[in-house]
Amino acid sequence: MEHARLTAAREAVRSAGLDALLVGPSADLRYLVGYDAHAMERLTLLVVPAAGDAWLLVPALEEAAAHASGAGELVEVRTWGETEDPVARVVAALQGDGPPGALAVGDRLFSVFTLALQEALPTTAFRPAGPVLRALRIRKDPAELAALRAVGAAIDAVHAQVPGLLRPGRTEAEVARDLGALILADHDEVAFIIVGSGPNGASPHHAVSDRVLAPGDAVVVDIGGVRDGYCSDMTRNYAVEYLPPGYAELHTVLEQAQDTAVQRVAPGVPAAEIDAAAREVISAAGYGERFIHRTGHGIGVDVHEHPYIVGSNPEPLAAGMAFSVEPGIYVPGRYGARIEDIVLVTEDGVERVNHRPRTVLLAG
Amino acid sequence: MEHARLTAAREAVRSAGLDALLVGPSADLRYLVGYDAHAMERLTLLVVPAAGDAWLLVPALEEAAAHASGAGELVEVRTWGETEDPVARVVAALQGDGPPGALAVGDRLFSVFTLALQEALPTTAFRPAGPVLRALRIRKDPAELAALRAVGAAIDAVHAQVPGLLRPGRTEAEVARDLGALILADHDEVAFIIVGSGPNGASPHHAVSDRVLAPGDAVVVDIGGVRDGYCSDMTRNYAVEYLPPGYAELHTVLEQAQDTAVQRVAPGVPAAEIDAAAREVISAAGYGERFIHRTGHGIGVDVHEHPYIVGSNPEPLAAGMAFSVEPGIYVPGRYGARIEDIVLVTEDGVERVNHRPRTVLLAG
Repeated sequence: MEHARLTAAREAVRSAGLDALLVGPSADLRYLVGYDAHAMERLTLLVVPAAGDAWLLVPALEEAAAHASGAGELVEVRTWGETEDPVARVVAALQGDGPPGALAVGDRLFSVFTLALQEALPTTAFRPAGPVLRALRIRKDPAELAALRAVGAAIDAVHAQVPGLLRPGRTEAEVARDLGALILADHDEVAFIIVGSGPNGASPHHAVSDRVLAPGDAVVVDIGGVRDGYCSDMTRNYAVEYLPPGYAELHTVLEQAQDTAVQRVAPGVPAAEIDAAAREVISAAGYGERFIHRTGHGIGVDVHEHPYIVGSNPEPLAAGMAFSVEPGIYVPGRYGARIEDIVLVTEDGVERVNHRPRTVLLAG
Repeated sequence: MEHARLTAAREAVRSAGLDALLVGPSADLRYLVGYDAHAMERLTLLVVPAAGDAWLLVPALEEAAAHASGAGELVEVRTWGETEDPVARVVAALQGDGPPGALAVGDRLFSVFTLALQEALPTTAFRPAGPVLRALRIRKDPAELAALRAVGAAIDAVHAQVPGLLRPGRTEAEVARDLGALILADHDEVAFIIVGSGPNGASPHHAVSDRVLAPGDAVVVDIGGVRDGYCSDMTRNYAVEYLPPGYAELHTVLEQAQDTAVQRVAPGVPAAEIDAAAREVISAAGYGERFIHRTGHGIGVDVHEHPYIVGSNPEPLAAGMAFSVEPGIYVPGRYGARIEDIVLVTEDGVERVNHRPRTVLLAG
């Protein structure tokens, strides 16, 4: 599989008129060679030339880790020693009859490395690798779709256990610790845990706090992890013992908005239309000003990737794309709600990978 | 404290002839404004102009988190919305009578943002921020030294409990789970956990595996966390029930090497001399080829930062610097050993922040 990805990457490098693609530790690197390298001050860099074989430069200390990942079966692994200049090694290898004309660097490569490369290659054009790799990563192959379904089932199973965790008197942080252990039961790592109770639910990126759960709290639980290299991301809303005033009405609107947006998903539909579909339902109910973020984001080896489901994105959906549909309504000082499922674009419509009920569940 | 840091950063920007310093989510950002922002596809950027007040651009969704960090008391927080272009916002704000002449960007800012800034400002010179911030971060103030001593004591306390964890029949991963919980008892987060038993100890950056501990295993335990924003990092070596053949002799050499290097630490001594001091002892005992990494790294808000204690670094040490001294000896296929303490350079010598015995401790 990964050999095919490297081949496709090289084709993309060629057709973009680049001499090479340079990828540091990131989801791009995992996608291309399966190596989950640690981003740090020592340079690790995959070089995919337009002509010739790809190779991976790693600190000597990381050689064992690189080989353990299996990357060495796909590309030659070269090492640099503690007193060497790794950028000089890359620059020397990129010299042909002269300096390269144009290089693409991974979106998440640290700037310190890009600036060092630019200083050593002042006549070379540097471009972001995102557009080069985007076409590869945005449409999932059957193995990737299967991985997304499996990790979706794994996070469904965690949400099934949430009602038992949200007892009055417990803190968000205590609940999060339990969620972490539950996520790890069928994921390889925890990506994030949001437990937004009461007014904390009104801040979409609130993580957890020492706030104590009380009867009548609405609680937004947004959790995700990584399983076999692919990410889950799923949000449901719960209420401790009973629903706070006004929450049932708000949540019904949100359920309709999320379902309407999901049903609009099909090949050829612009991403912005999915965003608009959710927004229309919420605005019609008078909550338009309370929906303060985009409707979704692509997902795969990264938890956030293309396509972004946002009003400014006219890109047509295509079979094999995977993304979240997660409208939310946030009432500052009181509570918030967000319903999030991952969906796959099929040849003729949409497939959800999360199947838990989307209603507010009572807990405690 | 942080106000003084921003003032010092602006002075550094001015004296480097820059128009502004641009810092994304990183230890630099935590150091300057205390905001531990998540590095992601949405841009968060601190702008420190040579003239005028610093300001922080954050995604609207992160506004609450930015304010919760206290950053809003130090700098103006500006937000960008989901359909805006944050790079255009930064570029517009940097325009004076014309485009800026030179900007420094944080070492760990994602390249995608730097390339977008470069595209919008084609006549502006871009430089790495590392050298600009280095003079600030490399010498710790009294509050930072106190934080490093406190986190050093916290990791000492974890190592005190390691012998009870290394029982025959347990896996490295099981031991690591226990270590994670012990680290969190007096740290805010776990930074890394290495449990290298038997031959795994010969790979300095081995993390953990499902290898089962057995009597006669040497075990390298290298652990660290973050407490009040400052990092710990400490390595000791243990043996399960008894020492494997040859290990006692090797470890005695390593103890002498580490102590010799630590005793050489004083203001004015080149960093390379500390590396050489450790290397000489190990080489004299015939293990020179087995010491395959640098002797140490600076530590503070980042677990690895300047000064690097490596043969290629002639920089003289100065009071207030903090770094690891961690020589190692690695015998492939059999075992490894590394002794690591954090030390502080004082006005007239050195202070260790880790105090656990440096001998091999029996466990199991």
